[in-house]
Amino acid sequence: MERQEDGRPADGTIPPSFWKGLPRGGEQKQKNSHVFPTHSISRPSCLSRDAEKTPSFVGFRNLMIIVLVVSNLRLMIENFRKYGVLICLRCHDYRRQDVIYGSVLYLLVPCHLLIAYIIELAAAKQAKDAVARIKKAGEEPRPRLRENKLRLTSRSTWRAIALAHGVNATLNLIIATKVVYYDIHHPGIGTLCELHAVIVWLKVCSYAFTNRDLRRALLSPTISAPLPEIYSSCPYPRNINWKNLCYFWWAPTLVYQPVYPRTSSIRWPFVFKRLGEVVSLSIVIWIASAQYAAPLLQNSLDKIFDLDLVSIAERVMKLSTISLFCWLCGFFAVFQSSLNALAEVMRFGDREFYADWWNVSSIRTYWTSWNKPVTNFMKRHIYAPLIARGWSPTIAQIVVFVLSGFLHELLVGVPTHNVIGVAFAGMMLQIPLIGITDRLQKMRGVNGKVAGNVIFWISFCLVGQPLAALLYFFAWHAKYGSVSKQAQHFRLFR
Amino acid sequence: MERQEDGRPADGTIPPSFWKGLPRGGEQKQKNSHVFPTHSISRPSCLSRDAEKTPSFVGFRNLMIIVLVVSNLRLMIENFRKYGVLICLRCHDYRRQDVIYGSVLYLLVPCHLLIAYIIELAAAKQAKDAVARIKKAGEEPRPRLRENKLRLTSRSTWRAIALAHGVNATLNLIIATKVVYYDIHHPGIGTLCELHAVIVWLKVCSYAFTNRDLRRALLSPTISAPLPEIYSSCPYPRNINWKNLCYFWWAPTLVYQPVYPRTSSIRWPFVFKRLGEVVSLSIVIWIASAQYAAPLLQNSLDKIFDLDLVSIAERVMKLSTISLFCWLCGFFAVFQSSLNALAEVMRFGDREFYADWWNVSSIRTYWTSWNKPVTNFMKRHIYAPLIARGWSPTIAQIVVFVLSGFLHELLVGVPTHNVIGVAFAGMMLQIPLIGITDRLQKMRGVNGKVAGNVIFWISFCLVGQPLAALLYFFAWHAKYGSVSKQAQHFRLFR
Repeated sequence: MERQEDGRPADGTIPPSFWKGLPRGGEQKQKNSHVFPTHSISRPSCLSRDAEKTPSFVGFRNLMIIVLVVSNLRLMIENFRKYGVLICLRCHDYRRQDVIYGSVLYLLVPCHLLIAYIIELAAAKQAKDAVARIKKAGEEPRPRLRENKLRLTSRSTWRAIALAHGVNATLNLIIATKVVYYDIHHPGIGTLCELHAVIVWLKVCSYAFTNRDLRRALLSPTISAPLPEIYSSCPYPRNINWKNLCYFWWAPTLVYQPVYPRTSSIRWPFVFKRLGEVVSLSIVIWIASAQYAAPLLQNSLDKIFDLDLVSIAERVMKLSTISLFCWLCGFFAVFQSSLNALAEVMRFGDREFYADWWNVSSIRTYWTSWNKPVTNFMKRHIYAPLIARGWSPTIAQIVVFVLSGFLHELLVGVPTHNVIGVAFAGMMLQIPLIGITDRLQKMRGVNGKVAGNVIFWISFCLVGQPLAALLYFFAWHAKYGSVSKQAQHFRLFR
Repeated sequence: MERQEDGRPADGTIPPSFWKGLPRGGEQKQKNSHVFPTHSISRPSCLSRDAEKTPSFVGFRNLMIIVLVVSNLRLMIENFRKYGVLICLRCHDYRRQDVIYGSVLYLLVPCHLLIAYIIELAAAKQAKDAVARIKKAGEEPRPRLRENKLRLTSRSTWRAIALAHGVNATLNLIIATKVVYYDIHHPGIGTLCELHAVIVWLKVCSYAFTNRDLRRALLSPTISAPLPEIYSSCPYPRNINWKNLCYFWWAPTLVYQPVYPRTSSIRWPFVFKRLGEVVSLSIVIWIASAQYAAPLLQNSLDKIFDLDLVSIAERVMKLSTISLFCWLCGFFAVFQSSLNALAEVMRFGDREFYADWWNVSSIRTYWTSWNKPVTNFMKRHIYAPLIARGWSPTIAQIVVFVLSGFLHELLVGVPTHNVIGVAFAGMMLQIPLIGITDRLQKMRGVNGKVAGNVIFWISFCLVGQPLAALLYFFAWHAKYGSVSKQAQHFRLFR
């Protein structure tokens, strides 16, 4: 250790507090250091209430992270000693038929967007004619005759167009759901196909609704509110073109706008970084689910079969960490990495795909901030129109949650071939939870906020993810796998 | 849900952000809500580097706490299913002899403080005589004769007094250690007795050293530095009295001062609250160690016996959480609750029994802040005198750590009847660790601070507590219990 000539260490070796008030060696050479008054003033302990300020607890934050890492490292060792390596690159368990049906579905589903485009082309033609007719009618001096002419043409045409859109969109969902449920056995491939179909369905709906209102604004500018400033660069019938449709098809949004805010250029390094994140996170999720979630789900089957509630609770708790981990990785991979990469390639400006949902103190805020593309769709095409028609906000919200529950059940129940309604019920459960956290937030200030956040995490970590996963996994095995065999076994041998 | 007359909900039901920019129902009755521009500006995702400010992550802090609670709750369920209730009120496993020897030791050890007092009484008498002689010698006109007179009397007397103190203090430690090692089998009773003996030993040393320097200051005021202001109300020979000794005996400090800062009154509610904390925390620690630590230690014995390193690592990791929990509870019970209660009863003013050691970024700061009574003793009676004699700070620190290691080994090795040197080695290991964290702290600013804190926690959680506990537990069982039987079994049947 470096030392200065007077015997004191070089700066930094000994903290000054250690030296405070002590006789310095080599300076005075006094010998009565044993009488140094250690206790010279009255002062409280720093954790006491009497203390002037509470000390920082940043060290305990670090400790929490360490304990989390260490305890999960331990579980990884335990898992390895129990099961060995379960990750297997060549263990495909999907059928050839699944891949073929899935690919065909992936190619066919976007055709519904094409059909919507064709319907809109026809509608735009009608609208242009109507505009011409209005112009003509404007020259018609008798007002009653003028109105009748306009009404007659519009009503039936617009209804036909709405019907065509409805049939097209509904067929999209029905065909995809039918194929996934009956012909694609593998739940992963099925989920991807169903998710794709739902996304295209939402895009078709938004395309149809938005263009209908744009048309209305064109045909009756006096009744409608003025259109947003941003649309002025591409007014109504001009936006019905192939390029505009393709942009909407690939843009990372479910809400159709003739014009979107755009960035000036594509930053390719940004795109590749995001894609790198997607790849690494996917590998991490794959390892986590193959090595940790799969055996956990497997050995909880008999506990559900026996309805051993304490064991089920224990399994759900163990599953919660791993499902939470996979969820957080998946969230980041989809909403941050994938959508940002796609947005950058499409030069799509508005990257608000999520807000800081992890801090929410109300379940309502969670549902309006974790998935902004869907929230935006629901707000613009379901909630706001219902409110505009004079519905009560509560009812409008319930409608949104019912639709959302329906879509969740489609996305989970159909690919697992078990429409058992757990996903739907889960979404319905959000409504009373929203009531509770809303009340809590109003009640107590900061503590209410923390309580709301804790309720959110618990309902999300313990009920939302792992319990639902467990139930669908059990339903799957009850239908196809080990549990039904076990049940037979029980019937035979008892 | 309450609603206002215009169809909007009462304040607070719907967050204003949900409504922002949306057409209001019942106000305008416009129908083109489907054209609302959701994407009107370019903005980055809040987790992107482009974002103006990073979002708060307070929700993840809550999540960490929840995950910690849930995963430990799960381990509690697992433990309960495996072992049932292990807590037993009437399962005493200590011998009658242990209690008798322990009680006698508890009564006899403070006698050494009494002996130190008697020695000091004699010394004070000598000092008073010496003062009288100095006065007389002051009247002696020949300076050489005057000096000789003083020297002759003082040297031999003071040496005899120092010897008496040394014998008294050493006998205290030797007798207590001998009794605990040979006659008290139960490690808990042994630890309490040994701890009591060490505390009294430190008090005796401090009493002797401080009074020696006070005496010196009295006899040669010109050579010594002036005494601290606080001592002026009770100058040297007056402080050698029964009441003053009794106060030092019971005061929550290991450092003798003739005068301490005192509070004006005893707040009895404060005392009872602190005692309540001690009782509840003791019960919590007892349950934790009986139900969780004991079976864990038991079923790691064969792993240490087989030297299965991965399994030992897994056991140490599992043990680390529970030992950390017990340590934190124990720290709070002793240094916050007990010492504050005692200080309040004694009207002892200086309650700085610890500083915020959980935030330390250097192992050195940890050792100077977690246990202030011992730190104060070491600083005043070992470190500062060595520095005053011109020793290098590094060597003085090593001396402190060697003494501390010796005391740690006494406190752990003697009651467990296994002086295997692990506690001593652990303390010695702190010296290189201090070097590392000191360097780290200087190197990189804030990151270095976090890194130092993490090194502290890991060395403390993983090596300090659980590994040492495991090794002493193993040594105990190798000597008395199951492991030696197992070893015999191996020898017989292989």
